[in-house]
Amino acid sequence: MLDFDPWWVVGFVDGEGCFSVSMHRNAMAKSTGGWQLHPAFHVYQHEEHGDVLEQLVITFGCGRIRAKGPNSKVSTFAVHSLVELSERVIPFFEQHPLIVKQNDFTLFAVIVRAMLRKEHLKREGFERLVKLAYAMNRGGKQRSRTLDEILMGSSETARQAPS
Amino acid sequence: MLDFDPWWVVGFVDGEGCFSVSMHRNAMAKSTGGWQLHPAFHVYQHEEHGDVLEQLVITFGCGRIRAKGPNSKVSTFAVHSLVELSERVIPFFEQHPLIVKQNDFTLFAVIVRAMLRKEHLKREGFERLVKLAYAMNRGGKQRSRTLDEILMGSSETARQAPS
Repeated sequence: MLDFDPWWVVGFVDGEGCFSVSMHRNAMAKSTGGWQLHPAFHVYQHEEHGDVLEQLVITFGCGRIRAKGPNSKVSTFAVHSLVELSERVIPFFEQHPLIVKQNDFTLFAVIVRAMLRKEHLKREGFERLVKLAYAMNRGGKQRSRTLDEILMGSSETARQAPS
Repeated sequence: MLDFDPWWVVGFVDGEGCFSVSMHRNAMAKSTGGWQLHPAFHVYQHEEHGDVLEQLVITFGCGRIRAKGPNSKVSTFAVHSLVELSERVIPFFEQHPLIVKQNDFTLFAVIVRAMLRKEHLKREGFERLVKLAYAMNRGGKQRSRTLDEILMGSSETARQAPS
């Protein structure tokens, strides 16, 4: 068993971790233009040192380890569950603040907690959270869809819905 | 001023750091077939969070920050000096052991200290240290020259030298 100082975990996550909120299509999510928010916490590592990720499962008491892709030699530790993010991951980083990824984490925590309160299921809440999500990770530069594309879907749906 | 716990530094270096010993051509290094060993400690970071690297300069009391390349948005903190590596960097990681990169670090420390004792200036010492260097970073898979290519040059020079 490796002995992980919590600050080691913070430094490692500042290097190899990612707090993200991705956008997924879901035809059932009519009030939000067919879009859903998917928060996730990932940590990446070459499979050679996969034991480090197993230790993160112990540290956080949650999370799954998988290969990044079918032929990838990179493994990922991932937490997707809103409850696990809210009860395990977020409190850990509130007690041990990140340095590099603190801004992304702060927005991430706001989004996860708002989703637990179901704020994302109504258009206004959804739009607020999408804007926060797009402010994460260098202003969402790596996203395949613009903020306007997402919000346009949401607004169109709103206009079509009976008032 | 940011407040860096030493274990944060260890975790961050386990993620974004690199201990490496590269091979450089130097026609003056006749006893080693024209090859020189260049140990270096690097930490990488997107320029957006370059302040973290500046803090590493304070933590280690040495090192320079530069862009990774002319058009790169990645900044690097680098220590090349054998004396600074030996007196500043290596003791820090002996007091606060790495997890992911501990094996690479151990070999790196052996090489740096042997070079300070000038062991690399003679053929036998050079060959021993090159073999250690090639055992680092997943067996030197990312190197442009094979271990045999380097050692062949060293041995050829030795054969040509008067006995």
